[in-house]
Amino acid sequence: MYDGIVQDLIDEFGRLPGIGPKSAQRIAFHILQTPTFDVARLSQLLGELRERVRFCEVCGNVSEQERCAICRDPRRDGTLICVVEDAKDVSAIERTREFRGLYHVLGGAISPIAGVGPDELRITQLMQRLADGTVQEVILATNPNLEGEATATYLSRLLHSLEIRVTRLASGLPVGGDLEYADEVTLGRAFEGRRSI
Amino acid sequence: MYDGIVQDLIDEFGRLPGIGPKSAQRIAFHILQTPTFDVARLSQLLGELRERVRFCEVCGNVSEQERCAICRDPRRDGTLICVVEDAKDVSAIERTREFRGLYHVLGGAISPIAGVGPDELRITQLMQRLADGTVQEVILATNPNLEGEATATYLSRLLHSLEIRVTRLASGLPVGGDLEYADEVTLGRAFEGRRSI
Repeated sequence: MYDGIVQDLIDEFGRLPGIGPKSAQRIAFHILQTPTFDVARLSQLLGELRERVRFCEVCGNVSEQERCAICRDPRRDGTLICVVEDAKDVSAIERTREFRGLYHVLGGAISPIAGVGPDELRITQLMQRLADGTVQEVILATNPNLEGEATATYLSRLLHSLEIRVTRLASGLPVGGDLEYADEVTLGRAFEGRRSI
Repeated sequence: MYDGIVQDLIDEFGRLPGIGPKSAQRIAFHILQTPTFDVARLSQLLGELRERVRFCEVCGNVSEQERCAICRDPRRDGTLICVVEDAKDVSAIERTREFRGLYHVLGGAISPIAGVGPDELRITQLMQRLADGTVQEVILATNPNLEGEATATYLSRLLHSLEIRVTRLASGLPVGGDLEYADEVTLGRAFEGRRSI
């Protein structure tokens, strides 16, 4: 639809997740027509991103150093490890400010359909972290879906032999949600997990 | 939430229209974790965008040359000019394949609230294009909202003295739309503009 680079840029933006052709066009024109938008900075950041970002050698979280900011922080509780599928999950949990332990990023979940088995995940590294006996609880915070549950079940069996408490995040009704609109599985889980008050 | 460059990139993406913090994070991680995504190309395109893109000296459409592809195309009908607010509107009209004339991009619409008067728009350039008598019809395709209507009214008065047919795009029910859900103004316009069949 457009001459050269404008269309090329729209096409490239359109390859990003959640950006359709119309949004891509809107973004390209915004960059073109907004003098205050620092396009040089965005270009530079994109150019440097993969060079500068590595993954924490301990937990697998994103980091610009060998160990991520959380693993380097001496105030974090080293007896607690929260196992998540993805580095994005670390950020989601950090926002709650509920958890002061460390993380372990698996890099995905077991999914026979997608061809992801336990060997594709950072499970060996998790077992190595647990070997010295410091960790007293492993919280399995994989997603509450088929793959996440399968991964949590696999890990809980694997950790069974160790003298470590293994927990799973609670499933139930979302806070602020409406019982009437909850799906059956979630509502069922909420009944199973009911607590005395 | 993240170390250095990842957060910087999320922040920059978050400044783009239609991209919230969650989408920005998703995009940054997609780029980081998808080896097949050509981040170098996106970075390069962004870096070159403003250098390479100029606006067509005739119609104001985006172009990498002095005159845009439409103005250069000898098959286009030079007796017809369609006046639009923005270069994005050119692309929207081109997709219909209904119009084979030329365009004139105003660069906005008259809006006293936003401080945009006729002098901020490419109206003088439009009048210059009409001066040699080649153009026989000017189609006012500004948006069917307050600012667009004000601009169309202003232009129609200005063009009244010239021997040129001035038309406005039809307002009415959107094709595939549902009469029941049409707003009153649109439905009113559809009645006003009703045609014999």
